[in-house]
Amino acid sequence: MSPKVSDEHKEQRRQQILEAAKRVFIRMGYEAATLKDIVQEAGMSRGWIYLYFQTKEEIYTALMEKHDQETEGIFDALLAGCSSVWEALERMLQHEKEELTHIQSGMAPVFYEYFVTGWRDVSKREWLVQRVEKTMRKLVQFLQVGVDRGEFSPALPLELIAKVMASQFEGIMIHTLALGPKHADAYRQLDVLIAHMKSLLLPSK
Amino acid sequence: MSPKVSDEHKEQRRQQILEAAKRVFIRMGYEAATLKDIVQEAGMSRGWIYLYFQTKEEIYTALMEKHDQETEGIFDALLAGCSSVWEALERMLQHEKEELTHIQSGMAPVFYEYFVTGWRDVSKREWLVQRVEKTMRKLVQFLQVGVDRGEFSPALPLELIAKVMASQFEGIMIHTLALGPKHADAYRQLDVLIAHMKSLLLPSK
Repeated sequence: MSPKVSDEHKEQRRQQILEAAKRVFIRMGYEAATLKDIVQEAGMSRGWIYLYFQTKEEIYTALMEKHDQETEGIFDALLAGCSSVWEALERMLQHEKEELTHIQSGMAPVFYEYFVTGWRDVSKREWLVQRVEKTMRKLVQFLQVGVDRGEFSPALPLELIAKVMASQFEGIMIHTLALGPKHADAYRQLDVLIAHMKSLLLPSK
Repeated sequence: MSPKVSDEHKEQRRQQILEAAKRVFIRMGYEAATLKDIVQEAGMSRGWIYLYFQTKEEIYTALMEKHDQETEGIFDALLAGCSSVWEALERMLQHEKEELTHIQSGMAPVFYEYFVTGWRDVSKREWLVQRVEKTMRKLVQFLQVGVDRGEFSPALPLELIAKVMASQFEGIMIHTLALGPKHADAYRQLDVLIAHMKSLLLPSK
């Protein structure tokens, strides 16, 4: 077997573990899930898993990194496929309507559980802060493209607009998680968020 | 001892338990805290506590109800003390700046922990939904005063504006909790929230 195939196999196994862990986390929540549950779900021996990950937490953070990379890919694809940066941003937010419909059966509850229960732990907290800051930098870069192309004339610093966008969206997620998409009025709340972003980014005509 | 004094004493004891529980929850978090910790902090016998509360959860929900009643009192006091409903609303939101500065050492982390860990439990979830809906009704009533006085001409249904205000504020809280008030830019985010509410409620001149 050539080293290349072997690397591919390794990566395949790794993805298999991550997918299994995702199903387990969604089903049981972060705290309740154990490494044993993930081993069983993946249908591998415990020894195999240890070649890749030592703890449940390592699997979780790898899963989040994978998720963040996928999100980044969506950013780039949208920018490439839309005629304007605003259209890309609006499409991204419109797309979240669909995500919010399924929020209760996705990774969001797991993420909030990890955030809230890990909040008092210094090392977990550092990881969380870095993750938020990385997301903010990406979002600012995205908005900056709109400024560079002469499309946006932001009323406030881009860093602040990015933070407002992220926290307003986060609030909608939290409410949708608590109340369900219908009671939280998630769609209309997203429309208000889109209009708010428009008022902060686009020149009023 | 007259029944009246006895009732007063009872209420005093109850408040004493709630205050002790609050300190314990803030120090340890919801899940980690036990009824025993609360008993010790209150400096009462276990038997005494059982006259008032059977479980940690009962104490927690009583604490939240007390908190909500206090918030309602603040609403009324602000409305009475301000010359306009908008001024009352703005003062309320400005006041939150101070609260956000201390968010990490207050009840907010405990609340989110209860929310996230209790989320899969049907009875806890019902309580959470009812609490959010009650808060929304209060907020709509508050905004309605502004409409009735001819001060507000809302661009959207008041129910939606109340939800947007609550979720946008919730998002700022979550980010402030994660990053600290400085990194989250909590003050400026609140200013943006205030300007957003102004644009949704006040007629543009």
